[in-house]
Amino acid sequence: MIYLDNSATTQPFDEVLDSYTKVAKSYFGNPSSLHGIGGQAEKLLSQARTQIASLLHTKPQEILFTSGGSEGNNLAIKGVALQYQTRGKHIITTSIEHPSVSEACNQLQELGFEITFLPVDKDGSVSLEILENEIRDDTILVSTIHVNNEVGIIQPIEEIGNVLKKYPKVLFHVDHVQGVGKVPLDFEKAKIDLCTISGHKFNGLKGTGVLFVRQGVKLKPLIAGGEQEMLVRAGTENVPGFVALAKALRLTMTDIEKKVKYLSELKQNILEQLTQISDVSINTPLKGSAPHIINFSINGLKPEVFVHLLEEDNIFVSTTSACSSKKNIPSKTLLAMGLTERLANSSIRISLSPMSRMEDVPILIETIQTALTKLRNVMRY
Amino acid sequence: MIYLDNSATTQPFDEVLDSYTKVAKSYFGNPSSLHGIGGQAEKLLSQARTQIASLLHTKPQEILFTSGGSEGNNLAIKGVALQYQTRGKHIITTSIEHPSVSEACNQLQELGFEITFLPVDKDGSVSLEILENEIRDDTILVSTIHVNNEVGIIQPIEEIGNVLKKYPKVLFHVDHVQGVGKVPLDFEKAKIDLCTISGHKFNGLKGTGVLFVRQGVKLKPLIAGGEQEMLVRAGTENVPGFVALAKALRLTMTDIEKKVKYLSELKQNILEQLTQISDVSINTPLKGSAPHIINFSINGLKPEVFVHLLEEDNIFVSTTSACSSKKNIPSKTLLAMGLTERLANSSIRISLSPMSRMEDVPILIETIQTALTKLRNVMRY
Repeated sequence: MIYLDNSATTQPFDEVLDSYTKVAKSYFGNPSSLHGIGGQAEKLLSQARTQIASLLHTKPQEILFTSGGSEGNNLAIKGVALQYQTRGKHIITTSIEHPSVSEACNQLQELGFEITFLPVDKDGSVSLEILENEIRDDTILVSTIHVNNEVGIIQPIEEIGNVLKKYPKVLFHVDHVQGVGKVPLDFEKAKIDLCTISGHKFNGLKGTGVLFVRQGVKLKPLIAGGEQEMLVRAGTENVPGFVALAKALRLTMTDIEKKVKYLSELKQNILEQLTQISDVSINTPLKGSAPHIINFSINGLKPEVFVHLLEEDNIFVSTTSACSSKKNIPSKTLLAMGLTERLANSSIRISLSPMSRMEDVPILIETIQTALTKLRNVMRY
Repeated sequence: MIYLDNSATTQPFDEVLDSYTKVAKSYFGNPSSLHGIGGQAEKLLSQARTQIASLLHTKPQEILFTSGGSEGNNLAIKGVALQYQTRGKHIITTSIEHPSVSEACNQLQELGFEITFLPVDKDGSVSLEILENEIRDDTILVSTIHVNNEVGIIQPIEEIGNVLKKYPKVLFHVDHVQGVGKVPLDFEKAKIDLCTISGHKFNGLKGTGVLFVRQGVKLKPLIAGGEQEMLVRAGTENVPGFVALAKALRLTMTDIEKKVKYLSELKQNILEQLTQISDVSINTPLKGSAPHIINFSINGLKPEVFVHLLEEDNIFVSTTSACSSKKNIPSKTLLAMGLTERLANSSIRISLSPMSRMEDVPILIETIQTALTKLRNVMRY
């Protein structure tokens, strides 16, 4: 099996699953219980929080556990909006966000908030000038994706943070879900106030995530109730899941420079050979993109047919983001980058992990070529 | 170890953990992915949904997966409120709800909704007459807990459902978290529109839950984004967790009558001996309470001291609900039942599971007696 859909989800590390089962079985207490069985669970939870904080260079009390990326993004955006609405009701985001950001913003529009969706240039980048022009007296939040999930474009997060330094009342949220373990992000340097990550995107478990919330930033809870998670996220904590997330993050961050270098070489290798196939046009910009995502279009191709053809040879890629793959609509990111609807509707995403093998590249390329030949003959596209 | 804090959380069944790890390891795909690895995960998710629906006598498309009870309660209440607010902004609930219901209601108050918190009688029961008197033209939702988590009182859910039949525009949500596997609930007969359950309360895993949403009832998503869970709950589905929940529910429902009978006998046995200890007053009403919860007060006792004394003998009980145990405030439910603050502040909860052993009862009673003697001597309370 050649699994190249790591931006959709990843296989959990064995060690991560081992930690999960050990904690779920032997330390099953409710961290809120007063007795020792609760205390053991509370201790493990606290250790996981401290370890994650140390890996992300934050304080433990800034690490808030969630059920994943979508919850993190919703909590950050709605939590800020409802908390700071007396200050203003204007939010700035981009036109190439994950649906959990754009839909959360759309919901806020129904509640009377105004949302500005920034355009991107042909390389998918937001302009700092346009961003600054859109900041108003009633702007309370800027929310941008770090690494775009469909195309792999990296937004200039540090530069945006620098612009926002001049506007201390505007909070800065970053959706870092696709960036963890691939594109380093310095929360401090980029002046980030809120940052979303998701466990299952870096070989952790589904249903686990973290929202970084800078000390002093307040949020209205999305899930209100008990006093868990600094009063911002109620519900019995998924202790084994969060211990597993800490382990996945530690394993991911080990030798990170080496892994990123390897991913870049892998991507370069694939790109060089892909560009030589006729009809293939690369959508991922060569500069300023993440080392693990390659998005390309084949003019006129039905991408789902292509995905299934590769699958026959045990190669797994994606048409677009997993969240949107069944909608059969053109990629929003590619449209925002100015591609024609035809090209945006025929895109394929390859997403790598440090476990992807260099020796699989020739097999991948040959399979793509064979699939295209087959399609050309059969479909005369 | 004699673990008697099963209303806080339970130890997962071994078979449940086995299912989890098998799915997490071998079927790790994203159910939204178009290819076969996604397809396998989607199939497992769909099977889990169908199995749960069959166990709860609902349709599969009425089973919505969540991260647990607190999310389920928040989604039901806020989801209905925001969806149906043009119809009216009045919600009725009770004064003895879990914080995830009462706090969700408090948040809605800030958004302009009106909440009526129904009183309860000395046995903790809601009056059908008072309930009906509170229904107004702008009432959109009645939300009641089925089995109260602190004291074990069962609300007359079917009777409430019958009252609500006359008001077809009023939706009915039930927090069934403490009831699953202990007090049967017929969703159809009780005319329930929304019903919350949580995996870890019946030997499933933390971070998993189900919200039953009757076909035709619409909800505004709490977590907006991708098209998962009938467009109501975005985010990559925690497939292994939900498969595990289905298994836990199946195991729980196997021989359920026998288990409930055993729990009742166990409770009866403990109650008979507890009542003979001087200074002990039982708060759980003898009639109309769940078979697994016993709440009692010892006048003037500091309950946390008592919990720690029992713990020295490896017996684990609770002062109140886990969610509130660290707050050190009197039990809201006991206050609503008319207990003095002193008694409400000195309550102990024993919560059983079908795995609790009858032969542990004499040990429990003896330990309680010894602990009380010790406290009387030392603290002269």
